[in-house]
Amino acid sequence: MSLRFTHETLPQRVVFGSHAESLAPEVARLGTRPMVITTRPADVLPGALHHREVVMHVPVEVAERARRAAAEHDVDVLVSIGGGSTTGLAKAVALTTGLPIVAVPTTYAGSEATHIWGLTENGRKTTGPDPRVLPRTVIYDPGLTLSLPVDLSVASGLNALAHCVDAIWSPRADPINQALALAAIQALRSALPRIVREPRGLPGREEMLYGAHLAAVAFASAGSGLHHKICHVLGGMFDLPHAQTHAVVLPYVMALNVPAVPDRIADLLADLPDLWNAVGAPRALRDYGFREADIPAAVEAILPVVPPGNPVPVTAGNLTELLHRAWAGEEPT
Amino acid sequence: MSLRFTHETLPQRVVFGSHAESLAPEVARLGTRPMVITTRPADVLPGALHHREVVMHVPVEVAERARRAAAEHDVDVLVSIGGGSTTGLAKAVALTTGLPIVAVPTTYAGSEATHIWGLTENGRKTTGPDPRVLPRTVIYDPGLTLSLPVDLSVASGLNALAHCVDAIWSPRADPINQALALAAIQALRSALPRIVREPRGLPGREEMLYGAHLAAVAFASAGSGLHHKICHVLGGMFDLPHAQTHAVVLPYVMALNVPAVPDRIADLLADLPDLWNAVGAPRALRDYGFREADIPAAVEAILPVVPPGNPVPVTAGNLTELLHRAWAGEEPT
Repeated sequence: MSLRFTHETLPQRVVFGSHAESLAPEVARLGTRPMVITTRPADVLPGALHHREVVMHVPVEVAERARRAAAEHDVDVLVSIGGGSTTGLAKAVALTTGLPIVAVPTTYAGSEATHIWGLTENGRKTTGPDPRVLPRTVIYDPGLTLSLPVDLSVASGLNALAHCVDAIWSPRADPINQALALAAIQALRSALPRIVREPRGLPGREEMLYGAHLAAVAFASAGSGLHHKICHVLGGMFDLPHAQTHAVVLPYVMALNVPAVPDRIADLLADLPDLWNAVGAPRALRDYGFREADIPAAVEAILPVVPPGNPVPVTAGNLTELLHRAWAGEEPT
Repeated sequence: MSLRFTHETLPQRVVFGSHAESLAPEVARLGTRPMVITTRPADVLPGALHHREVVMHVPVEVAERARRAAAEHDVDVLVSIGGGSTTGLAKAVALTTGLPIVAVPTTYAGSEATHIWGLTENGRKTTGPDPRVLPRTVIYDPGLTLSLPVDLSVASGLNALAHCVDAIWSPRADPINQALALAAIQALRSALPRIVREPRGLPGREEMLYGAHLAAVAFASAGSGLHHKICHVLGGMFDLPHAQTHAVVLPYVMALNVPAVPDRIADLLADLPDLWNAVGAPRALRDYGFREADIPAAVEAILPVVPPGNPVPVTAGNLTELLHRAWAGEEPT
């Protein structure tokens, strides 16, 4: 890996522990009039304004209503408690108001550790980076992820794994975000089977949160690699489900790229595909609505967005083969 | 390692590359009236104010003169080009003025990656953390360290190694700074012998800068462990030379603690002591003015400052043995 690069380390306070203990003092560091964005039932922060309208992909009109609520109540700090959509709504409010966010994630989506916002208008999603949307503080409480069923935990965990694996060969990959990505891979490969074995066990849950955090930090720094470009096209063109698409495609991208990465990294990734069987992960795109006949159109749409510097040059030939194997759920070799 | 912790990730822009190319544009991101603090001869930034009075340990009166120069010339950005003392002077100016710093290190001291300042008044050094002194941007140019002789490069590199090894068992060690520390150890163990073999080779120099950067980030986050407490006492009480003291003591602290750290980390540290022979590192405190008769006083001074949570409980007995071996330069076992 080249040692000529520019790396931005983003500031964040990260608390691993009980949100019951740490939420109030962490919010108090940033403001006195919090708005809590959550779909969870309980009032977690007495006296706070609660905002409960959360919609996937953050439609602009939903963001506007949340912004108005924040303005009307003279809110000075945002608290999000939930998955990616909840964090995303808090980011949408921060984007226009500059309000600080305390994020309390309940999945392994990782949005809480990035400065990327996303908004949907007329069915079209726009995303972008902005330092103001990076949550100032994140509270990772493994107890909050216990209610995530095993299959969703696996999908969310494999999505986190895709962040750090893809970060290794992303265009802005550098030794710093790569070191974080490798540490994340080690944590996630250990945590995923632990959660399957013991869904109510906290150690697996907290290890997964730790891995998902590092994965998101690495991914936010390194940017999308081949895997995310493929999944983005498949999701957009064929309306495939997000988590399952990521879970199915990742082993095939690894099979393509791993032979061309340095031995030290290849060794770490070598037995990662075994994990898919160990955790009962989705294995074939045909199970999720992708048809064999869709492959040529997908190839045509993916080729122009292949990231520069992918370890293996991507051609219509090897991309067609990759998608065909992923469609059929064949062994990724 | 416990997954209950609070970690602060500090913001910094890090550029690895040629300072001739990147200094002017990086400075321009932060200001238009730079003051360059350096003892190097050339005017590196045309039109900038150059300040050349740099003194070890940053005496307060030296800092005051630099602050006055900055104020008189209405400086809006500080540039430090040099080792720890140069970076330290820029930090002293930033501490009272809030001016942003672009740091260009020429050693492996690591100060440029921390928010710790130090000032000396009446022979007494005070240090402390302050977010304002953390350089906003660091430019790591391996070419600038080519002039550092091999023995100083080794001493400076082992000092960097002490940062990341000691961070592993520091009181605020957490999985995030530990992941950075382990990546730093891998880089430094590779870079040190490369520099000895090929002092004019850039690859070893840039790998050392990369390792020194991660080591400093990990150390700033984790805080001082046993090794730094011992060296601080030895340096203060017996006026021993900084780098050599660190180089001699580290293998003995490792020999004490490594048996009590998790296997995964112990494996990584196992053959690290071989490095000392490979690079011709200092091996005995007796060679630097420390006397056998000083050991009891040193033990008495160190015991009260032993960090809580050191992997092995530190007693007068094992500390005396450690210092005796370090004094004599015996095999660290």
